[in-house]
Amino acid sequence: MSAPSDKALVPFVSVEQMMGLIHHVGLEPMMVEIAQAIEEDFRRWELFDKTPRVPSHSPQGVIELMPTSDGEVYGFKYVNGHPSNTREGLQTVTAFGLLADVRTGYPVLLSEMTMLTALRTAAMSALAAKYLAPEGAKVMAVIGNGAQAEFQCLAFKAICGIDEVRLWDLDPAATAKCAANLVGRGLEVIPCQTAEQAIEGADILTTVTADKRYATILTDNMVGAGVHINAIGGDCPGKTELSPGILRRSDIFVEYPEQTRIEGEIQQLDEDHPVTELWRVMSGEVPGRRDARQITLFDSVGFAIEDFSALRVVRRRIRGTDFFTPLDMLADPDDPRDLFGMLMRAQSP
Amino acid sequence: MSAPSDKALVPFVSVEQMMGLIHHVGLEPMMVEIAQAIEEDFRRWELFDKTPRVPSHSPQGVIELMPTSDGEVYGFKYVNGHPSNTREGLQTVTAFGLLADVRTGYPVLLSEMTMLTALRTAAMSALAAKYLAPEGAKVMAVIGNGAQAEFQCLAFKAICGIDEVRLWDLDPAATAKCAANLVGRGLEVIPCQTAEQAIEGADILTTVTADKRYATILTDNMVGAGVHINAIGGDCPGKTELSPGILRRSDIFVEYPEQTRIEGEIQQLDEDHPVTELWRVMSGEVPGRRDARQITLFDSVGFAIEDFSALRVVRRRIRGTDFFTPLDMLADPDDPRDLFGMLMRAQSP
Repeated sequence: MSAPSDKALVPFVSVEQMMGLIHHVGLEPMMVEIAQAIEEDFRRWELFDKTPRVPSHSPQGVIELMPTSDGEVYGFKYVNGHPSNTREGLQTVTAFGLLADVRTGYPVLLSEMTMLTALRTAAMSALAAKYLAPEGAKVMAVIGNGAQAEFQCLAFKAICGIDEVRLWDLDPAATAKCAANLVGRGLEVIPCQTAEQAIEGADILTTVTADKRYATILTDNMVGAGVHINAIGGDCPGKTELSPGILRRSDIFVEYPEQTRIEGEIQQLDEDHPVTELWRVMSGEVPGRRDARQITLFDSVGFAIEDFSALRVVRRRIRGTDFFTPLDMLADPDDPRDLFGMLMRAQSP
Repeated sequence: MSAPSDKALVPFVSVEQMMGLIHHVGLEPMMVEIAQAIEEDFRRWELFDKTPRVPSHSPQGVIELMPTSDGEVYGFKYVNGHPSNTREGLQTVTAFGLLADVRTGYPVLLSEMTMLTALRTAAMSALAAKYLAPEGAKVMAVIGNGAQAEFQCLAFKAICGIDEVRLWDLDPAATAKCAANLVGRGLEVIPCQTAEQAIEGADILTTVTADKRYATILTDNMVGAGVHINAIGGDCPGKTELSPGILRRSDIFVEYPEQTRIEGEIQQLDEDHPVTELWRVMSGEVPGRRDARQITLFDSVGFAIEDFSALRVVRRRIRGTDFFTPLDMLADPDDPRDLFGMLMRAQSP
């Protein structure tokens, strides 16, 4: 049997290869590069084929497909969200993604995205804060010290110039884990006993907890004028982190309103509550932060274009490296009409 | 670095492994088994989460995601349709698919589906004909002798007892290829000079052409009383094969009306033209063929549940074999909250 042709082989980036690639590029430079790719793609927002993610809900969680296309390249991500998984030692969120050539429909990249999503989520948060955080912001409170926390801290350091992080979690073990992981990475790290202590004096408040329910991580009296709130954890129906009072005092920025109104913090507000699309800020069409007393809120849920941008970076960065394996994923008969002949020839070695 | 745990490894079936598996099981027994799985799943139709496929259209073709779930297992297929691909020596249709555990969201199978889709499409056609074809049908005309033709012929032989096939294609080379591939497989194979010659006296008419446009492969006067029409080729908006006159004389059976009205032959009819869902026939709720003079028409477009059924067979059949490779697709840190620690430990070998 002849070997599959190049066209039939799809570069696959495994978890191990992704981790190798991240160390090869450097974690912070890689997040900076992903943020740049997201910014480029948000600036050409109107080009993209956009659709709310396609969910399949179950009592335990959700499995979602997030497709998009810029007319030349098609991408989608498979991602699950199962909060009870941690009880069995499994990840709450796992993901993989794919890019394909729109002209032929042939896949051109298959990649793990559990790790990559952690980078792109942090890169997106820091990119939004570049436009929304108060000038000269140096201190960030991080409420929720789970799997995403360290990535947030380092992305905000690399992209926004944060130099101090205050950590708090309901579970002190999570805070200890996060603090230990951040040792020697150029950040002042302060584990805190209470959420109030973490927030006191912080310029940026990041909320990144994982419970699938309405929870109030921040109450109204905890949030003073002038801060930027980076709300990551409220990202599916029935899961929010902020009290409605905070939302009403904030100017709210979102990725894709059609999706955020279903999944984000603003599911607690009226359907016509005004929000600003981040792509309009990045395009220079509307301002980001306008004054020092304003409370800005990035109601982050994660959008398909961000995954597309991150996959673009991976596709570019694996060229000429060993951080991928060609995968025999596409049948490629010599005569495209002769799939049957290809199958029959495979029988005789 | 420690090896990924079992949970993080997804069994992947490559094209070569799929072909090996098909020969291991036998092509006809495998199509019989897939038809049985489809029949089982159609009989529990109401259990499934159903949604029309999620398309991304471009001038050259379409890329689609087809998700479904039975509440325990989730599945989706990625499939493209690019008719102009054959001009570059590429497949019109390529596909891959995935099954995941609904309870955890973790993928449990990734498989090529270009080859598998050929089998499941033929298995579905023959399964429908088991309920719809005239009693004692022995002769099938096959109009369109491309990549799907041989699979149709052998599925109808194995599942419906067809013993003679009449082949016709606009391109005589396609007919010659198909006839040569079918030599020695227990079918009387008759290459024909005209569509009329192929159809004369046939009990079943299979139309399986690939042009992406409205074409009239069968005109009204070509179809006599009592035949079963198996219409495969009309499967996206703007692509049909039968004249509306035939449709009006036929009792029409479909997979999922919401999708067929957009993509099937019946896009040529009024939106409320009566059709029968095949799952109701298979459940015994409504009759299939009622009398010997009736023209039955299976307006086939392919539905997500059929792919799900085919993937179920693959998942069951690869157990204990070498027809798969474990793929390191899911990050699996020892502590699920410590994705960052997993990344950092990957740096030091």
